[in-house]
Amino acid sequence: MTRTVLSSATREVVIGFDEPFCIIGERINPTGRKKLAAEMVAGDFSTVEADAVAQVRAGARVLDVNAGIPLADEPALLAKSIELVQSLTDVPISIDSSIVEALEAGLAVCKGRPLLNSVTGEEERLESVLPLVKKHECAVVAISNDETGISEDPDVRFAVAKKIVERAADHGIKPEDVVVDPLVMPIGALGGAGRQVFTLVRRLHDELKVNTTCGASNISFGLPNRHGLNATFLAMAAGAGMTSAILNPLHEEEMAGVLASDVMLAKDKDCTHWIKKYRAPTEGAGESGGAERRAGGRRGGRAARVAAPAA
Amino acid sequence: MTRTVLSSATREVVIGFDEPFCIIGERINPTGRKKLAAEMVAGDFSTVEADAVAQVRAGARVLDVNAGIPLADEPALLAKSIELVQSLTDVPISIDSSIVEALEAGLAVCKGRPLLNSVTGEEERLESVLPLVKKHECAVVAISNDETGISEDPDVRFAVAKKIVERAADHGIKPEDVVVDPLVMPIGALGGAGRQVFTLVRRLHDELKVNTTCGASNISFGLPNRHGLNATFLAMAAGAGMTSAILNPLHEEEMAGVLASDVMLAKDKDCTHWIKKYRAPTEGAGESGGAERRAGGRRGGRAARVAAPAA
Repeated sequence: MTRTVLSSATREVVIGFDEPFCIIGERINPTGRKKLAAEMVAGDFSTVEADAVAQVRAGARVLDVNAGIPLADEPALLAKSIELVQSLTDVPISIDSSIVEALEAGLAVCKGRPLLNSVTGEEERLESVLPLVKKHECAVVAISNDETGISEDPDVRFAVAKKIVERAADHGIKPEDVVVDPLVMPIGALGGAGRQVFTLVRRLHDELKVNTTCGASNISFGLPNRHGLNATFLAMAAGAGMTSAILNPLHEEEMAGVLASDVMLAKDKDCTHWIKKYRAPTEGAGESGGAERRAGGRRGGRAARVAAPAA
Repeated sequence: MTRTVLSSATREVVIGFDEPFCIIGERINPTGRKKLAAEMVAGDFSTVEADAVAQVRAGARVLDVNAGIPLADEPALLAKSIELVQSLTDVPISIDSSIVEALEAGLAVCKGRPLLNSVTGEEERLESVLPLVKKHECAVVAISNDETGISEDPDVRFAVAKKIVERAADHGIKPEDVVVDPLVMPIGALGGAGRQVFTLVRRLHDELKVNTTCGASNISFGLPNRHGLNATFLAMAAGAGMTSAILNPLHEEEMAGVLASDVMLAKDKDCTHWIKKYRAPTEGAGESGGAERRAGGRRGGRAARVAAPAA
């Protein structure tokens, strides 16, 4: 059974075929968040801090950190953000950038074993990112596109993923440390986007035996009731074999879809997490009867690091 | 592609591999509804009438009708209920009873091509129900248990389903007119219930090539946030190949899971139904901007029959 082991200084998190679906918090990303971008450039990381804590409390097991702001010193901002996030929480980090220098800066300060986000099938990217993955003995997200773009043919995307896994092996990186992103397209524009991804995820799971992830909310772009679509997409993707996703854990519907899929796939033993999160407060014993989003909170006061829910 | 064609006097509904998930309304059933049972025995069918109309307005494409009340004249109550439901709505009927005489009474009055619910793999049941199916040229729900009970082994349940399909063929009934219920167990008691059903549904779809149905809400028995679990179960079951379910279409969460699964599986062309149901009222043109549950209502006043949404 494939296991991608990530860690912070003190906590190990496994993405795996038999593990609960791994929720990677997406919020720390200035793309499309003008206010956050302006704050970060001005040296104000209060939103980064708040987002880190809130996402872990809501159930994120890994935090994606991105500092991609045009004309800004992305490597420095990314490193600073990662240090701050790691001072406040104990979850592993997904170091997210399209700039190799920023990935390097993030790796230089990041404690534990992060997920490097990302490499693609593009030749230049492969040969610049994979050596970093090997040097730092971390894991990497492999996006299934290459110089020719994103194919609508799942077979082509499978072939690109396979190429990346093989190239990683050439660099001494094990397949279990490559987490493939099959690329989720907006289903409002491309009606076959769901079937495409489910087919691809199933092949990646059964044939290539790799873990998978995705930016889940892409699926619902342009459509109404996006949370409803995202939640169903996540559950069906998990059913097809997807093992993690980058999403906003503050959205209750998406979280319900993910947690229910864990119940359905027997990954939530005795339905423990489900019952803890959803039983009525009157049935519980005092404060533990509330929503799981509060589970990690309030312990040790403001200075304490926020701990993720136990595995 | 397997197609189970059902009809009322005026409307055809197809359960099929390439059709939208078929929602069979479950409400007209006195089991566990003491007030409804008392009303029906007293000759008051107002709740039956209201439930029929409300379920079709909410999106049911078929209505299950059950009149199983201990010590009551079930055949007469079932026939009366079916006649009433067919006078108020234009959807096909699932005639639901464990008593053969009641099935016969229902068939005698039912217009169109109903679904007979149900036959099991029990010898006596096979030889009493299948001749009725053939005689009335209707379709039948086949529940995958037999004299030995309900096996926890999906292979055994598959074998029972296969036996029923073969026996039906001996009676001149086509496999496409057998809709298999793989039996959904409570996942709170049996943690593997989800995986079990998904595996079974996939085999029934791929190998036996039959349509499938189930009583969806069983999955969440005894657990909190049942609607959340049911919705996710329905979507994941659809992803595994399930093509219909008996459920309460008045529950918004379950309906969202089903309709979103249609979007994900490219069964809702151009996301038409999804957009119609969920776009904000201000985006729509007056009354059509509201929820689909009102789509069939108000036309022609009280005496008009309620039409199901167009396929």
